[in-house]
Amino acid sequence: MRTWIAIGASFAVAAFLGVLHYADANAVLQFVVGILALALLAWTVGIGTEVVGARFGPAATGVLQSTLGNLPELFIVIFALRAGEIVVAQTSILGSLLANALLVLGLAIVAGAWQAGDGVMRFSRRLPNDTAMLLMLVVFIIAIISTSISLGDRAADNAETISVIGAILILCVYGAWLANYLRAGGGQEPAIEGHEAPAIAFTAGLAVLALAGVAAAFVSEWFVDVIDPATQDLGISKAFTGLVIVAIAGNAVENVVGIQLAWKKRYDLAISVVKNSVAQIAAFLYPALVLISMLFTQHLTFGLPNNGLVLVVALVFAALAIWQITGDGEAAAYEGLALVVTYAVLATVVWFE
Amino acid sequence: MRTWIAIGASFAVAAFLGVLHYADANAVLQFVVGILALALLAWTVGIGTEVVGARFGPAATGVLQSTLGNLPELFIVIFALRAGEIVVAQTSILGSLLANALLVLGLAIVAGAWQAGDGVMRFSRRLPNDTAMLLMLVVFIIAIISTSISLGDRAADNAETISVIGAILILCVYGAWLANYLRAGGGQEPAIEGHEAPAIAFTAGLAVLALAGVAAAFVSEWFVDVIDPATQDLGISKAFTGLVIVAIAGNAVENVVGIQLAWKKRYDLAISVVKNSVAQIAAFLYPALVLISMLFTQHLTFGLPNNGLVLVVALVFAALAIWQITGDGEAAAYEGLALVVTYAVLATVVWFE
Amino acid sequence: MRTWIAIGASFAVAAFLGVLHYADANAVLQFVVGILALALLAWTVGIGTEVVGARFGPAATGVLQSTLGNLPELFIVIFALRAGEIVVAQTSILGSLLANALLVLGLAIVAGAWQAGDGVMRFSRRLPNDTAMLLMLVVFIIAIISTSISLGDRAADNAETISVIGAILILCVYGAWLANYLRAGGGQEPAIEGHEAPAIAFTAGLAVLALAGVAAAFVSEWFVDVIDPATQDLGISKAFTGLVIVAIAGNAVENVVGIQLAWKKRYDLAISVVKNSVAQIAAFLYPALVLISMLFTQHLTFGLPNNGLVLVVALVFAALAIWQITGDGEAAAYEGLALVVTYAVLATVVWFE
Repeated sequence: MRTWIAIGASFAVAAFLGVLHYADANAVLQFVVGILALALLAWTVGIGTEVVGARFGPAATGVLQSTLGNLPELFIVIFALRAGEIVVAQTSILGSLLANALLVLGLAIVAGAWQAGDGVMRFSRRLPNDTAMLLMLVVFIIAIISTSISLGDRAADNAETISVIGAILILCVYGAWLANYLRAGGGQEPAIEGHEAPAIAFTAGLAVLALAGVAAAFVSEWFVDVIDPATQDLGISKAFTGLVIVAIAGNAVENVVGIQLAWKKRYDLAISVVKNSVAQIAAFLYPALVLISMLFTQHLTFGLPNNGLVLVVALVFAALAIWQITGDGEAAAYEGLALVVTYAVLATVVWFE
Repeated sequence: MRTWIAIGASFAVAAFLGVLHYADANAVLQFVVGILALALLAWTVGIGTEVVGARFGPAATGVLQSTLGNLPELFIVIFALRAGEIVVAQTSILGSLLANALLVLGLAIVAGAWQAGDGVMRFSRRLPNDTAMLLMLVVFIIAIISTSISLGDRAADNAETISVIGAILILCVYGAWLANYLRAGGGQEPAIEGHEAPAIAFTAGLAVLALAGVAAAFVSEWFVDVIDPATQDLGISKAFTGLVIVAIAGNAVENVVGIQLAWKKRYDLAISVVKNSVAQIAAFLYPALVLISMLFTQHLTFGLPNNGLVLVVALVFAALAIWQITGDGEAAAYEGLALVVTYAVLATVVWFE
Repeated sequence: MRTWIAIGASFAVAAFLGVLHYADANAVLQFVVGILALALLAWTVGIGTEVVGARFGPAATGVLQSTLGNLPELFIVIFALRAGEIVVAQTSILGSLLANALLVLGLAIVAGAWQAGDGVMRFSRRLPNDTAMLLMLVVFIIAIISTSISLGDRAADNAETISVIGAILILCVYGAWLANYLRAGGGQEPAIEGHEAPAIAFTAGLAVLALAGVAAAFVSEWFVDVIDPATQDLGISKAFTGLVIVAIAGNAVENVVGIQLAWKKRYDLAISVVKNSVAQIAAFLYPALVLISMLFTQHLTFGLPNNGLVLVVALVFAALAIWQITGDGEAAAYEGLALVVTYAVLATVVWFE
């Protein structure tokens, strides 16, 4: 019952944003309502996926969950690209990546380690190392193209061509990894279905999922529309909006489930939810959007503009940090805290840009 | 008895520096005597701490030892800041970090592996990994602010604010780590007290410690006073002075104990002494000095000036090197040599700056 | 018999290049024939080494094989330096490094993991970690000098002096590592001699080796001669020529043996061949060439010019990637694919420079 109320609330807020949009209401108000609507819809999509996914095996559910969970994110980036908001598009992808890899993972570790008897959260080493590898690959492409751009050399003029080639290659690696991951059953753990009886029935879940998807598309469009005036009124930079606000609203909220799972001592599953999300944004969503964006006038690339070198530094350290902290299959609370602090420092730096 | 002679010598050299100072003696002479006095006092503080620390548990002693062992370092930085010698202040912190992480650790590994039957020094993996994590966190903040400064973007103008926020956040992580470390008893090893009967009595140790602290404060002030004229006469850059000379004199000499312990096959303890020192400089001393410096006219930040990017590169590689080499709990002599060589190359580069 | 035909073919192609050279034939034709000749001679040197090496112990053979296997590479760099083609010299060393560390290792892992029952190739962790360490050390020196050069500070003017000091220090570390590696018997595996009966007799092998060495020297000189006109006609950059074409022709082809060994499930030996090659180029060939180049007018250093920062980024990620992927002693096919993709992206970027 509480689930239905929450689902209803998410649609209500989305509808309210629609009213505000057509009433040409204050941009800041629309901006705030948009953030709320995105966060709630992301949660609703998560619920729907879980229900629908229960029909499939555990590993498939995990992947399905990540894929659909990234829907709101996907819509925002597409609408941002269509609206020519290339900074918002790029920073919100990278923001989702960093918010999941640092903030959500960090909080999950703090929660999990707090609950563990000896203060150390333990989990399988395979997925963290694979995620670190996929992330490193994407960060390499971002770093090499961005360096090229900052040097202004001839490769910079071909950033789009290189990005398209890179995107196709990354998708191949992701495909090979995913095939292997699904074949191996996504780890030995019992996975999501066992975690609790779904709150709603299968067909209802399917309907919720479809509706939430449509709503997310509309909300994304309306939200992107007001980013420009709202951030100007609020005095927030677009980089901060994409990197922190959109990232947390559109993606990280859904992953609160990862933190809850860690708190319930379901360590492997918690890591699986958060890490799959990171791997998918890095090695599937970003390259897929690079390819999709070629249909638009504004093209998304892996190259960050000159002042984006700060983000390249953050990505490199994020990749190293999650490898260092989770690569050995155990993590203490202070290690989770270190990840959260890394994210907080990054957000502070971006705030002042 | 030999201990008392050495302690006496350290005070005598300190007093001699005082005489030279008030006699306005040749700057280069004062500079050389100052280095000697700092090194001897650092050693004396080490002795005092060990004696006093024997009253407390092993883990507490280790931390106390690092804390008091960093006293001379602390005084130099504070007096350098007061004198407006911001380059000396910043480079001597980073120099201590690098001298301990690369030179002292490298020599300890060479000594330990030499003594080991199969040429491999073995130790607990936990502390090395934790140190690498803390170091990585600090290096991240240094790298991101320095990148921002080198790009000259708006965040650069707020380097101080970001540094203060970063410093507070790092201190939280250090606190969380330290609490965990002390609760866990600082590893399972018997620690310092067992290593040999203290050479002097408890109250004598306390007196020595207090006197050495006061002497270190005076010596630091006198030393900082002559850095400017002496380095000009000698043709040495300030960066080299801070990064190599002050770093080795003020801090690394004390850590010779780490090398001795490795030689005596007390591997875990050796690693503990060196690593605790690195962790403390990075995650306690540096952020604490950033906060303290806000009381002075010259503010210390985590941001390095443009030509400091060389140091950022060195810090990143140092963090990676100690993680790579000691993270698996074993190290061979050539790995120690690689650390020493890394330090030597860095010193060479800084020499020519 | 087939071996002799192949050996004969390699000398025939070398002789044909000589004819083209003295007939002043079309540069592009000479360039293509030169690549073919280099690749075939690299293979012939490999055969000769294996035969001669069978007289010595397994570890010695591995090292001898790497050393002689790098002969063609060595000649090209020396002739390129003599001809003042500093870009070709430097990029072909780094290209060999990257081609072996990323492309050949990646393909070996794909082959090995494909053959393994559970899709995971397993091997000893020691050599991969040692190689990562040696590579990291060299990359550190390259990165710090290149950063210095790009900042244009005073250390940049002394890049040669610093490089010479660095080269000597790296050779010391390599020597210490090699002594340890040979003493330990190069791992526990039975090594090369057991792998199959040599195709030719010992004295014949010695003769082939000597002849191939002489031929490689001539071919290298002729090849370097036409790089300039041929790349201009073809519209290929010198960086691409050195980094990809020369690297694969002169060095990587020989390492096809590594891929074959992985396919035959001789995992430790496969890793040993590829990794020894990487370690040797990084920590022996490059520093040795830096020292040798001091005899020429054009000096080779560890410093890359400003637009070489793209290569520094690639080297850092290559070092991290091989550490991350092979450091735990196991690798899956998608991890090998990730290495290959990293190389492909790098080649694409360099292509457009």
